[in-house]
Amino acid sequence: MAGIPSPSIPVTERTRLKRLPKRGVFDRAAVYDILDEGFVCHVGFVVDGQPFVIPTGYARVGDEIYLHGSAASRMVRSLTTGLDVCVTVTLVDGLVLARSAFHHSMNYRSVMILGQARLVTDCEEKTEALRAFTSHIVPDRWDTLRPVTSQELLGTSVLALPIEEASAKVRSGPPVDDEEDLQWPVWAGVVPLSLQSSSPEPDAHVRPDTAPLDPRVLARGARRGK
Amino acid sequence: MAGIPSPSIPVTERTRLKRLPKRGVFDRAAVYDILDEGFVCHVGFVVDGQPFVIPTGYARVGDEIYLHGSAASRMVRSLTTGLDVCVTVTLVDGLVLARSAFHHSMNYRSVMILGQARLVTDCEEKTEALRAFTSHIVPDRWDTLRPVTSQELLGTSVLALPIEEASAKVRSGPPVDDEEDLQWPVWAGVVPLSLQSSSPEPDAHVRPDTAPLDPRVLARGARRGK
Repeated sequence: MAGIPSPSIPVTERTRLKRLPKRGVFDRAAVYDILDEGFVCHVGFVVDGQPFVIPTGYARVGDEIYLHGSAASRMVRSLTTGLDVCVTVTLVDGLVLARSAFHHSMNYRSVMILGQARLVTDCEEKTEALRAFTSHIVPDRWDTLRPVTSQELLGTSVLALPIEEASAKVRSGPPVDDEEDLQWPVWAGVVPLSLQSSSPEPDAHVRPDTAPLDPRVLARGARRGK
Repeated sequence: MAGIPSPSIPVTERTRLKRLPKRGVFDRAAVYDILDEGFVCHVGFVVDGQPFVIPTGYARVGDEIYLHGSAASRMVRSLTTGLDVCVTVTLVDGLVLARSAFHHSMNYRSVMILGQARLVTDCEEKTEALRAFTSHIVPDRWDTLRPVTSQELLGTSVLALPIEEASAKVRSGPPVDDEEDLQWPVWAGVVPLSLQSSSPEPDAHVRPDTAPLDPRVLARGARRGK
């Protein structure tokens, strides 16, 4: 897409929420915040009429997200033919416990991107994408690693999906019970959930003089201003 | 399906792993353990050739998983027509930080189920499914809630998907670096990740004499023997 993308993402018939439209978010910055906080997406594609949904890593760079995989994988083989794809990223923020089963819910933020992926063939762009995957997980790690070899570059397929047709869906806040249930004698509210890291486990080969892992990686949510 | 299902799930051309077959798991008990620990799945289905991937709650009962939604939602409207569906559940267990970008990975356990969903119309089965959704999140909560009304039952669509064509994929353990990289001077190992709960936030209407939330809900992983 040429030029500066619009700060809001146009709503299409395919991204318009059929239900609870107030949960829909089409603000580009909000969509990008969700994409930048997550790091596992679910990629949907169709082979012989059968949908497949595969979890995989990703990284956003500008107005695209990059996916990668072995050239031999079904996902990569399918997507490089220009198949329609749906990439969904979901962050789970809490259990919403209401006074009736019907009003139980979850707090979450999710993004859905529709489109066709482009196979990245340019070596420089491919290297930048690989750097983005690493930096998205652990900032500043790329420069400390054994450099990528040209053989590794060849064996990795990188796909780029433009963030053109996309939407986010967000639910937050307390349960919404029916007025007449508010006196029902059961605890109701939210149990916040978040993905947390625990003590890093060095492998058997880490040299004793090696700098420990930067603790910022241990506070993903906090680092991203949650 | 009549009779007792086999303890291993038959491998099909669609569930066989094309790459890294040692990550494939077709043991029914192992697949069910993953399904029982997760509570958000990603449902893939196709409308007009376009795949959609929607996050939603689920619960396993016996050899089926139940999904639910408003009868008006695109997902429910699509699946009730007997469309092919793929339901994927992914648990993220850790960041695998290697000495080269190429060998970075994630520890995870995921399950993919392929098939067609059945619309549950029997009121009793529907109620049991709703009970399963609630109990899957918070055991013993169902009996403390304001009972489900027949209007709520009517407004909720419940779908059942048999766990017949399914597979799990598991990666665990430390990074697998190239032998010649083992002396590279950078930290390498695993940063364990898990979904953790924090202090429950009661809503504005909880009566002061209400029993607090059973703390077992706060230790999901622990409760499930992780």
